[in-house]
Amino acid sequence: MSRIVTIGAAQSGPILREESRSAVVERQIQQLREAHRQGCDLVVFPEVALTAFFPHWWIEDEAELDAWFEREMPGPETQPLFDEAARLGIGFHLGYAELTFEGGKKRRFNSAILVGKDGQKIGHFRKIHLPGHVEYRPDNPFQNLEKRYFEFGDRPFETWRAFGGVVGIQICNDRRWSESYRLLALKGAELVLIGYNTPDHIPEHPHMDRLTNFQHQLCMQSGAYQNACWIVAVAKAGIEEGVSMIGLSSIIAPSGEIVAQTKTLGDELIVHACDLDDSKAYQELFEFGTNRRIQHYGPIATQAAAVPPP
Amino acid sequence: MSRIVTIGAAQSGPILREESRSAVVERQIQQLREAHRQGCDLVVFPEVALTAFFPHWWIEDEAELDAWFEREMPGPETQPLFDEAARLGIGFHLGYAELTFEGGKKRRFNSAILVGKDGQKIGHFRKIHLPGHVEYRPDNPFQNLEKRYFEFGDRPFETWRAFGGVVGIQICNDRRWSESYRLLALKGAELVLIGYNTPDHIPEHPHMDRLTNFQHQLCMQSGAYQNACWIVAVAKAGIEEGVSMIGLSSIIAPSGEIVAQTKTLGDELIVHACDLDDSKAYQELFEFGTNRRIQHYGPIATQAAAVPPP
Repeated sequence: MSRIVTIGAAQSGPILREESRSAVVERQIQQLREAHRQGCDLVVFPEVALTAFFPHWWIEDEAELDAWFEREMPGPETQPLFDEAARLGIGFHLGYAELTFEGGKKRRFNSAILVGKDGQKIGHFRKIHLPGHVEYRPDNPFQNLEKRYFEFGDRPFETWRAFGGVVGIQICNDRRWSESYRLLALKGAELVLIGYNTPDHIPEHPHMDRLTNFQHQLCMQSGAYQNACWIVAVAKAGIEEGVSMIGLSSIIAPSGEIVAQTKTLGDELIVHACDLDDSKAYQELFEFGTNRRIQHYGPIATQAAAVPPP
Repeated sequence: MSRIVTIGAAQSGPILREESRSAVVERQIQQLREAHRQGCDLVVFPEVALTAFFPHWWIEDEAELDAWFEREMPGPETQPLFDEAARLGIGFHLGYAELTFEGGKKRRFNSAILVGKDGQKIGHFRKIHLPGHVEYRPDNPFQNLEKRYFEFGDRPFETWRAFGGVVGIQICNDRRWSESYRLLALKGAELVLIGYNTPDHIPEHPHMDRLTNFQHQLCMQSGAYQNACWIVAVAKAGIEEGVSMIGLSSIIAPSGEIVAQTKTLGDELIVHACDLDDSKAYQELFEFGTNRRIQHYGPIATQAAAVPPP
């Protein structure tokens, strides 16, 4: 048996601060067409894929901040991406900064959507594990203001039936938390899509910089193996407005093996024919229903901080 | 700042079916003395370290089964290990099959103890994630009858203040479950000790055999990084009564890096000076209290099996 979904991880090089969404969408459409030539069913674009990663900068003016967000999806500038994908018969994942009015209140999220081959939205996810800080850090060479500009995702990790399997989404820092994978696996995920913008420098912990690439893939490889799912993780990479970000967009099998990864820090497409049935053997190996000992797991869901013994 | 604990991972080669506990303890005492020469504070012995790994065989006779278990710890045959460790001023971790009478009922567990430099017991743990099966599998070249011979650990993952830090224990298959690390980290673990007996062949999934070593270390490396702890994992290795088991006893830093690993499948000691303060930077990086979003984690502790969308 096999259930092949051919997936393209469409890594993005840096996006200039003044680059228009239309120009970015044009780059994405080029990748869509190349993916079509390579037989893709699904193309995965990164987190906040339509603009430079603005949480790296301090922005005080609210109108200026809001201008980095999408108020509709698709909107006038993203409609051509939806149209071209539908014309080619390719689904896609797109990360974007979401501005919405709910209950009369303006809300901002770091979000992603999954779109089917017919151009219709299948799923929508709001990043749960926001990294970074709220305050300005004058000593840092760049900021990481996600906790200032976004609200924490207010909806659970979710999966959807799509592309012949069960698909879920994480965004960037979600991938460093083992709970993210497990929650998706508990909803049957066979394929997890992850966009990210990850600097190769941690201002507060510079001694960790040499390990950024390693730890990035380590979390996802173990997440894939322990949760029996494919992972397709896609970077915005390269030096963007002075901030250097990792590449290593990766397609990872349920064995934990990396089966494809990018080799540049620019726009680059990697493609793999993912057999969703590969996840079955690992689902049988781990057999959650028989082997998970939930009576011991309570503190994971009730206790946030560590409490060492007295 | 540094809090160095010098730890020896005392890998064991195979133990013959007819080998006496006294003979095994004599091998362990040789490793203790070598560890002392190398300045160890703590020596870690494997899971079920005193005998061959009997769950690989079908045993019908109850008296014969019980003979593989320890009714007291220390008992007459293990007392010399306790005595020599105390004489040398070295603490140790020892895995063993535990037979106990509680509430008038005979109970069997796959257990481990942590013993201080003074020879006094510090902690005791009963394996929670038992692998394998209950029934005889005639087509398999060996059995994996842990679910038949042991009860599931009935006490939580626990940590203890010892060796200048906070120490916890997992046993073998516990290491493949992300919850095991997280539960220990929520109790402040800076050092996790793991003994294992891991065949290099999975009769039900032989196509996974080539990945056994990789997946073994993958789980622990990500467990260390995501939970900011040192891991010392120790094998019973080599071909034991016809069952071939992996080695790769490993000392893993909170960065996820393997800093030492064995290179044989026999009795082999590897030593590393582990700085428990290394875990602090990663505890600060992940900052559980600020960043864990427990309001979303409920299903991890309430739902054992996966439930895909309809």
